[in-house]
Amino acid sequence: MSLVVVGSVAYDGVETPHGKVDRMLGGAGTYIALTASFFTSVKVVAVVGEDFHREDEALLREHEIDLEGLEKVPGGKTFFWQGVYSPDMNERETLKTELNVFADFNPSLPAAYQDSPYLFLGNIHPSLQSQVHGQMKNPRFVGGDTMNFWIEGALDDLKAAIRNWDFILINDGEARMLSGEYNLRRAAEKIHAMGPHTVVIKRGEYGAILFRPEGYFIAPGFLLETVYDPTGAGDSFAGGFMGYLAEQGVDDIGFASHQHLRKAMIYGSVMGSFCCEQFGVGRLRTLTRDDIEKRFEEFRRFTEF
Amino acid sequence: MSLVVVGSVAYDGVETPHGKVDRMLGGAGTYIALTASFFTSVKVVAVVGEDFHREDEALLREHEIDLEGLEKVPGGKTFFWQGVYSPDMNERETLKTELNVFADFNPSLPAAYQDSPYLFLGNIHPSLQSQVHGQMKNPRFVGGDTMNFWIEGALDDLKAAIRNWDFILINDGEARMLSGEYNLRRAAEKIHAMGPHTVVIKRGEYGAILFRPEGYFIAPGFLLETVYDPTGAGDSFAGGFMGYLAEQGVDDIGFASHQHLRKAMIYGSVMGSFCCEQFGVGRLRTLTRDDIEKRFEEFRRFTEF
Repeated sequence: MSLVVVGSVAYDGVETPHGKVDRMLGGAGTYIALTASFFTSVKVVAVVGEDFHREDEALLREHEIDLEGLEKVPGGKTFFWQGVYSPDMNERETLKTELNVFADFNPSLPAAYQDSPYLFLGNIHPSLQSQVHGQMKNPRFVGGDTMNFWIEGALDDLKAAIRNWDFILINDGEARMLSGEYNLRRAAEKIHAMGPHTVVIKRGEYGAILFRPEGYFIAPGFLLETVYDPTGAGDSFAGGFMGYLAEQGVDDIGFASHQHLRKAMIYGSVMGSFCCEQFGVGRLRTLTRDDIEKRFEEFRRFTEF
Repeated sequence: MSLVVVGSVAYDGVETPHGKVDRMLGGAGTYIALTASFFTSVKVVAVVGEDFHREDEALLREHEIDLEGLEKVPGGKTFFWQGVYSPDMNERETLKTELNVFADFNPSLPAAYQDSPYLFLGNIHPSLQSQVHGQMKNPRFVGGDTMNFWIEGALDDLKAAIRNWDFILINDGEARMLSGEYNLRRAAEKIHAMGPHTVVIKRGEYGAILFRPEGYFIAPGFLLETVYDPTGAGDSFAGGFMGYLAEQGVDDIGFASHQHLRKAMIYGSVMGSFCCEQFGVGRLRTLTRDDIEKRFEEFRRFTEF
């Protein structure tokens, strides 16, 4: 079943200890849509400028991503982000953020998107997330991402947005900030009480934890021999997670769906791990579903006892 | 089958955000011996002073720990360590280390210890570890722990010691320091080449990874609602890991033992998690094997997919 994805389609400049790329396709919306497209049909809502390359659009089309909701602003410039990673890649510094056409983004959903049963709201201003959510007719499963910037600067909007989400994806530091609880079990309980019945807390290289009213599930991070570029790993997790649920037609309740949610956690981790293997979306260009299934089985092998 | 444990039996002063205890039973040897005693018969090699309390000795005896190798120095004072944890408990500062009788520790194994098939060398000077190891007749499985202090200050002794170990338990920072590799898979490969076929890298609250020539296994950390005192958690991991292997009579080779090693990783994680639930060895006083099995099953529940 189809998945609507909202988020930035952008150009990134990235420097890691393994290299430097001045400008390449990036953005949360791009990573989420590409990774989800291995599982389900994806419809993108985003905005780009006139400088958006034909070949980048072609890549999205090759993955059968619906671009009816990708607005192109004549004379506009695409969102640009530039960052540099620390030697251990656990920290990154933003060198430049040029919002460009994203500054006036006023998302409007094509009619053909509004009946989609799955919606993922990438990390944008929570009031924009609500605006998109409000245009959907009756989605079965709605998830979203956020960040410290909105927790600090737009907390009321954020709380209003997530009240109606089924699923929130958030990293450990942000979960602590949003809940006021250091302990992740207690942080997740507080976030449950804010709305989402499904809380996934990302822990970077250490993996992620799924918290549900009936229990929790821990997915370890994949041990890559070399991390070339971690940009987009969290978004790729979101794409694998939501893509798999949409493929399976899972909605929110019951034991069977809990089993699917666990598998979704692993597919998310698998997609996050592939993302780091090359710069930008490089690895996603050649990836196959077979590669994905092999790594899924590898996760089983190194966690079973 | 019996397990010989070498390590400090000490008094600790500990302050965490949850409280402060000026002086209580502690030391790596104590934690390892107590946790292993839930699985197998344990023989301790250590030294204490005349100030070592009768009730602390009684606790060890209650767990049927053989104390023939616990030397008591007349007029001597027991090793004392004092430390304070950061608010998030991921860092700790040592305020005081009084080696006392440990300064002249010259371990000598009772004859009844020398035939034991299992040996775990707690974190002491590597030349003392070798001295103990050399007194064993033909142990089937030998493991040991070390720390940054010996990697920096006694590297040649450490390399000589671990050349003959089957198993090394080491934390992530120390594994990187010892191997010169940041990436944990590559660090483990280098450490394999130094001797131990079984390398376990601890990652604090995130759990631990087992590296073997035939593959690796990731055990997540248990999500406690409250960590009262993490002192001894790594040693408790060692005790659960070695205790379970000794109980099962596992030695070093083959698929069956690899399955046992995975379970040993979980029993280690279980014992580490219980250790943090009260100050010092508090939780180990009331713990039962039934509690341990229940938590082992809980690990299965939150990792299975």
